[in-house]
Amino acid sequence: MAGQLPIVDHTGMTVMPFATCLSRLRATPVGRVAFAQNGDIEVLPVNYQMLDTAVVFRTAEGSKLGAALQGKAVAFEIDEFDLTRRAGWSVLLQGRADLVADETTLRALDSIGLAPWPAGIARPEWVLIHADTVSGRCTSNW
Amino acid sequence: MAGQLPIVDHTGMTVMPFATCLSRLRATPVGRVAFAQNGDIEVLPVNYQMLDTAVVFRTAEGSKLGAALQGKAVAFEIDEFDLTRRAGWSVLLQGRADLVADETTLRALDSIGLAPWPAGIARPEWVLIHADTVSGRCTSNW
Repeated sequence: MAGQLPIVDHTGMTVMPFATCLSRLRATPVGRVAFAQNGDIEVLPVNYQMLDTAVVFRTAEGSKLGAALQGKAVAFEIDEFDLTRRAGWSVLLQGRADLVADETTLRALDSIGLAPWPAGIARPEWVLIHADTVSGRCTSNW
Repeated sequence: MAGQLPIVDHTGMTVMPFATCLSRLRATPVGRVAFAQNGDIEVLPVNYQMLDTAVVFRTAEGSKLGAALQGKAVAFEIDEFDLTRRAGWSVLLQGRADLVADETTLRALDSIGLAPWPAGIARPEWVLIHADTVSGRCTSNW
C-alpha cells in the first residue's frame, strides 16, 4: 500500500499526527502558556514536563499566575524554526489549568524533579494543564 | 554615578527596558499571535515585521484568522532560550489587531516585501497589531 498523502490545511500547512504532536511535547523543554486575563491575553514561557498527556510546570506559592490560571481555558504552545530553510512546526495543546492539590499527584510531580530556571524564588506549587485538544502543523519542507 | 541595579519582578526575572524589547521585536523574524476565540485560546506562529511599534504579518483573503482577529485584544510573543545555561528572554506585545484597509498603509506594507513561509496560498491581506503595552523579561544570567 502506498504511503498516505500529507493532509494540508487551508493555510498551506501540513497537519501533524497526534502521536507526532505528543512526542514533540515530550521532547521539548520550554513552551508558552497563553490565557485571557482582565480582557488582555497573557503569554508566558515556562520550562515544563509532560505527565501522560498533561503539561505540568511549577509556580510560586500564592502566585498571581496560579490564581489566574485556576480552572481557566488555556493554551500551551511549542514550536521550532529553521530560518535558512523558512521551515518550522508548532504544536498547540488546549485545555484547562488546575493548581494540583491532590497529595498523590503532588508526590508524583515532586519526584520528576522539574526545576524552574529563575533561581531564588521558591515554586512549591504545580500547575497542570489537562489536554482537551492537541494539534500540530508544519511547513511542507520540514 | 554607579550603574542602575536591574529590576527583578516577583517571579525572579529581570525586567527588560522598553528600548531593548523594541529592538528584539525588530530583530526577530518569527513570533506567536495569541487570542481568544469561542472560549478557547489560540496561539499561532507567524513570520512578521515591525512597522514603527506595530507588528504586521500577512494572511489569506477572507481568512478565518483575519476575521477572528479583527478589532480583538491579542498578544504577540517572541522569545529565545539557551538550554545549556538555563537562560532565556521573552517579549510580550499586547494590543488590538486590525485588518489593514487603508490604501496608503497597504502600499507601505507591500513595499516591505514580507513573504509568508507556507507557499502556494496567496496572502494579500495584512494584519496589524497596534501595541498598547510592550514588556519583556529575561533570566538574570542572560
